[in-house]
Amino acid sequence: MVQAQLESYISQHEGRFLDELMGWLRIPSISTLPEHAGDIRRAAEYAVEQLKRMGFEQAQVIATQGHPLVYGEWLKAPGQPTLLIYGHYDVQPVDPVELWESSPFEPSVRGDNLYCRGAADDKGQTMVVFKALEALMAVDGKLPINVRVLIEGEEEAGGESIEAYVRAYPERLKCDAAFICDSHMPSKELPALITGLRGIIYTEVEVRGAKRDLHSGSYGGVAPNPFHTLAVIITGLKDAQGHIHIPGLYDNIRPASEVEKNFWHDDPLHMNEMLLEEMGVREFTGEAEYPPLERIWGRPTVEVHGMVGGFTGEGAKTVIPAVAKAKISLRLPAGIRSDEAFALFERRVMELAPAGVEVIVHKVHGGEGVIVPVDAAPMQAAAAALKETYGKAPIFIREGGSIPIAALFYNLLGVPVVMMGFGLPDDNLHAPNEKYSLSQFYKGIRTVARFLQNMSHS
Amino acid sequence: MVQAQLESYISQHEGRFLDELMGWLRIPSISTLPEHAGDIRRAAEYAVEQLKRMGFEQAQVIATQGHPLVYGEWLKAPGQPTLLIYGHYDVQPVDPVELWESSPFEPSVRGDNLYCRGAADDKGQTMVVFKALEALMAVDGKLPINVRVLIEGEEEAGGESIEAYVRAYPERLKCDAAFICDSHMPSKELPALITGLRGIIYTEVEVRGAKRDLHSGSYGGVAPNPFHTLAVIITGLKDAQGHIHIPGLYDNIRPASEVEKNFWHDDPLHMNEMLLEEMGVREFTGEAEYPPLERIWGRPTVEVHGMVGGFTGEGAKTVIPAVAKAKISLRLPAGIRSDEAFALFERRVMELAPAGVEVIVHKVHGGEGVIVPVDAAPMQAAAAALKETYGKAPIFIREGGSIPIAALFYNLLGVPVVMMGFGLPDDNLHAPNEKYSLSQFYKGIRTVARFLQNMSHS
Repeated sequence: MVQAQLESYISQHEGRFLDELMGWLRIPSISTLPEHAGDIRRAAEYAVEQLKRMGFEQAQVIATQGHPLVYGEWLKAPGQPTLLIYGHYDVQPVDPVELWESSPFEPSVRGDNLYCRGAADDKGQTMVVFKALEALMAVDGKLPINVRVLIEGEEEAGGESIEAYVRAYPERLKCDAAFICDSHMPSKELPALITGLRGIIYTEVEVRGAKRDLHSGSYGGVAPNPFHTLAVIITGLKDAQGHIHIPGLYDNIRPASEVEKNFWHDDPLHMNEMLLEEMGVREFTGEAEYPPLERIWGRPTVEVHGMVGGFTGEGAKTVIPAVAKAKISLRLPAGIRSDEAFALFERRVMELAPAGVEVIVHKVHGGEGVIVPVDAAPMQAAAAALKETYGKAPIFIREGGSIPIAALFYNLLGVPVVMMGFGLPDDNLHAPNEKYSLSQFYKGIRTVARFLQNMSHS
Repeated sequence: MVQAQLESYISQHEGRFLDELMGWLRIPSISTLPEHAGDIRRAAEYAVEQLKRMGFEQAQVIATQGHPLVYGEWLKAPGQPTLLIYGHYDVQPVDPVELWESSPFEPSVRGDNLYCRGAADDKGQTMVVFKALEALMAVDGKLPINVRVLIEGEEEAGGESIEAYVRAYPERLKCDAAFICDSHMPSKELPALITGLRGIIYTEVEVRGAKRDLHSGSYGGVAPNPFHTLAVIITGLKDAQGHIHIPGLYDNIRPASEVEKNFWHDDPLHMNEMLLEEMGVREFTGEAEYPPLERIWGRPTVEVHGMVGGFTGEGAKTVIPAVAKAKISLRLPAGIRSDEAFALFERRVMELAPAGVEVIVHKVHGGEGVIVPVDAAPMQAAAAALKETYGKAPIFIREGGSIPIAALFYNLLGVPVVMMGFGLPDDNLHAPNEKYSLSQFYKGIRTVARFLQNMSHS
């Protein structure tokens, strides 16, 4: 009876659900760019409104040292477990903006996809949760379990404020399980639950050479060139075979289970092919002695994201810059602690730096990796929900990205963390033309509603 | 008599000379940025006005495929030699603009210096020539020799148009000597004439990896990262000891004279100390087996000027870019032809590129190096002028920068090329806070007037 009503309610309101998502997406809540502070605030308030309208209590914006958190709770199901639901309302920057086929902050529906920065990461997925909660409340007047919602605005900027909050007030977040809706499935036909994530350290390596910018004619041949130093450092950190040369970094990787190892090796779902297709390349880079799935899920990597300094405009300028920086991150499988990795990284960078320049390693942010057990009740409740809506049992896989809050919930709150998301590999996260599948959006709402029902003891 | 009148005229008009320079400097004629095309035109017309007011004939803007040339002639001294005078009215971009202490295009006098983009390179030095010509005309009603003036607007952008013009119409530029006022002296007390310049090739090395920007969480470990390829290429082109690994590049360097070798080795003027001071460093980089002066004047160098792509804003973005580029130039001592150097460079870059990425080497511009004989009459006339105004015979040195037009005049027009400029090493060419010494500006005017007088047979 409830199932039919739920289905009817969701079907009837799909259009409005999409409209409400679009309204949220139009707010350019880029957390790393200070000029968007006002948008961050508006996006937070938009989420509070969603919670208030559903009848959540304590729905509020919580000020932090950085961008605000959004919190709301519904705790009127005595005897039932409490689920802590996490999402984030901030988004990545949009450059290179010229590669977007439609304006980055004007949602555009093309085929089954909704294109907009944040469509998938993570406003779309957070809206899935909101609408599942709304539907359950609407048809039954209550939720099947107790729910706390905690949404941050700094996920793309290091997530320091939510970490400080969780560490300071764990009792306010008391729960039996956490649920993070910020991941993807291998395809629309292949539901998945995430059992592991890599941690991260994001750094800026700054090299200072001469006291001022120099003309390469007058000084080229005797001047320190910070870009050359950075090239030496970058090639010294990772070789052409993908091996990282940071002593100690590989030491503490938590061993994978035999099941996982076999999955990585055998690749029964032909995920390698999908990866190659998504990247548009014919071969993988990296450590040839590990299967590609292990390289992205179970091995560390070093990646350069950008180089700052000198002349990057059109045409020619023959400057040797006084200062240049490289934005370099490391992904860290569970077992490698991010603070230890940073120390090893910094030591190695200093060792690689030649004489005659000053090198400074800045830590921008860091977060831990995690591996969660698949046999916990909430994981099984989520798996059952996916089977009910997708007609197929989910696979248990890892993801190579980092959701540091997952490790924090797992380690600090001591609860199982369900990572179930409805993104797809071609969603262009962090890239131009980010999109979210509309069918996944609607199916996600149904699945999350089922998940909460399955969590109920009754 | 004429000397006294000349001195009186120059002294009397110094203030106006400076005002006229400032008027020219306020026009932001950046040749590499398309949005400044209108400024380029205005700066050219400003120069034409200068020539017209002095009574030059044929004073005009000459349209080209690129930015216009400025030409004017005064050929009423039968039996006297003809001097072709070169300058450029275009300037470098101004970034990083936040490091300028005064607005880059608002001239600011502080102490003996005039700060502005183009103050030294090359509007200030070209104005020195204009005002020397004006003074000679004013006090004598004529010039002591015949003069053609040819000024370009693409020196900072490759100078292709003037090269095409000189190649197409050498007869229009018929002369007995060329004079380029675009170099500097080691100090205000040490006049110098330039006998050699390095050539240049300026390139963009473009690396294409995946078909789109990728998230380093989802793909880091198996994705091609163009920045890593660029780092491999850069470290493969030049090692930490400053040795360039481009097979064949060192083969054709024209041998230096014993006099020059001794000067480089002995460094009698303590120029090494000056170089260290100007750079603000304690040690030189580069080929330890060559004296520093040889490294910048007589040896090739490879320098990276900027890296384009990925994320360079504040904070963090974990993108693996689909495409990244490095702006890389080579300086080439006389003997190494720029087109041959480009071919060798391109071959080496391709050899260094790993599998799995596409590498494209773009040539932005190129120009030849040159060594000119010191015993030609015009060189001696310039040397005498410097001795007269500075009270000291000039030294004959090379410069590490590139003025491709010098090689073209020398090789194509077949005339001696006098390179005499009044810049100083700390003029911050191509960098924030470019300046020109006012005392050098005024002394330069007197020196150039003397130079023209000394060129006269009478």
